[in-house]
Amino acid sequence: MQDPFDQKKSYILQEIASSVLDASPKGTIDEPCWPIIQTINSHPDMVTTSSCSGRVSVFLEGVKQSDAVNRSIGAKGHEGRWLFVSHDPKELSGWYNRMNFEYVSSGFQIGASTRYILFKFEPLILHVKCRNTIMANRVYQAAMACGFRESGIGTNDIVGIRISIKLDIPIGYFDNQIFKIMVSEEYLQLATKLAEDRFAENFRKLQQLERSMESLRVLSAEASSHIETKEERRERKRKEGLERQRLKRENDDKNSTSQVWSKLTK
Amino acid sequence: MQDPFDQKKSYILQEIASSVLDASPKGTIDEPCWPIIQTINSHPDMVTTSSCSGRVSVFLEGVKQSDAVNRSIGAKGHEGRWLFVSHDPKELSGWYNRMNFEYVSSGFQIGASTRYILFKFEPLILHVKCRNTIMANRVYQAAMACGFRESGIGTNDIVGIRISIKLDIPIGYFDNQIFKIMVSEEYLQLATKLAEDRFAENFRKLQQLERSMESLRVLSAEASSHIETKEERRERKRKEGLERQRLKRENDDKNSTSQVWSKLTK
Repeated sequence: MQDPFDQKKSYILQEIASSVLDASPKGTIDEPCWPIIQTINSHPDMVTTSSCSGRVSVFLEGVKQSDAVNRSIGAKGHEGRWLFVSHDPKELSGWYNRMNFEYVSSGFQIGASTRYILFKFEPLILHVKCRNTIMANRVYQAAMACGFRESGIGTNDIVGIRISIKLDIPIGYFDNQIFKIMVSEEYLQLATKLAEDRFAENFRKLQQLERSMESLRVLSAEASSHIETKEERRERKRKEGLERQRLKRENDDKNSTSQVWSKLTK
Repeated sequence: MQDPFDQKKSYILQEIASSVLDASPKGTIDEPCWPIIQTINSHPDMVTTSSCSGRVSVFLEGVKQSDAVNRSIGAKGHEGRWLFVSHDPKELSGWYNRMNFEYVSSGFQIGASTRYILFKFEPLILHVKCRNTIMANRVYQAAMACGFRESGIGTNDIVGIRISIKLDIPIGYFDNQIFKIMVSEEYLQLATKLAEDRFAENFRKLQQLERSMESLRVLSAEASSHIETKEERRERKRKEGLERQRLKRENDDKNSTSQVWSKLTK
């Protein structure tokens, strides 16, 4: 009988092959994710369960309910919808010219039920299911060393790989069926340029992560097949340490504006 | 001899007591975090290692280097600094009037080395070290059930509890020692109001999380002291399931605009 991990992996690989894996609005796997998905899935102890290569979106919040509980921020809720979504920086230029926007420079008509329009950049996110906890920890540590500082292990040895290069900008609101924009067209142009910069950074990090996932190959087979001896563990720790040092040198993310934490424990 | 977890915990509790725990710019533990920190630390199998109750900040990026590697986004780097930081929504009103801002409605002077000014809302984040993996998984699942969807377990059974209600808005740039603002004062007023709304949501989630952490007490002792019997495990799973259902009902976060993922594996 097949091991449960191998069974699940072979099911997922079939789904990928028949291209029905991705249930997101786009319906397929984003092209920039293909190399890293191939790299991860060629490792015997890992399989990707979801991915998004990063995207720009313009979102209109849903209709807000009067009770506090249902008045949550950025809610899809009733009639929330994307006005624009792109996974490709080349599609961004002048997107706002193709929208039916009305620019209002002052006198915003805002209230508790206002439905805002948000311009967002959301970076790469990847979920990797691992054969066991040893492997999940390796993937987690490799991702952290690449600067994916919001990564974490969830249930069933699935590692969520996340980074925090975002944009989340309220640009307008919906009023009498009109998209009223509270910033200038020049501002939207600038915000779009910043989204392009973030896309570039995002793809650079994606490549770095891919190399890091590739390097986990040398550590493959022993993770699953048997319990390590002390010597094997020492040798693996040494290799992993060297790899992490190499990645850290590559990684310029140490200066990002993420919040400063007291870390008494590591 | 003391167990390593108990040793670490007692060290951390001493540090908290002498109020030197928090190495962040503020230097103390944020007041809104006190109740949840007390709740968590009164559990024999958990201890908080870092916390931030959420904050609004205005950040001036550092000087950008000409090489791509050092031109990263939002970098602190050389001379990057906070122009304003507040953990208290009551301090927000009119913050921009106290700054030396020059509003420029058009003709932005932007280039590759432009240092942007960013207005940010960053939500609650909490790190909880657990005695063992069983406990870490419980904390993780409780946080996820409360809508802290970006949570994850790191190394050494430390759970990072994260949520994604953010704002990340470029509002201006630094030019000839002048803070040039690309949006109107009315826009800054609106962005501040949205930050206040996010603070309110943030504190609501914090309370929900605290109740959830409180409910983990009933599951305390057996996690560390002995290996569960089948019956105990069944009873614990039943209790946890009921608790999760209760929290899910409370949680309106299911409709947030987070990206949609295909999840073949749970």
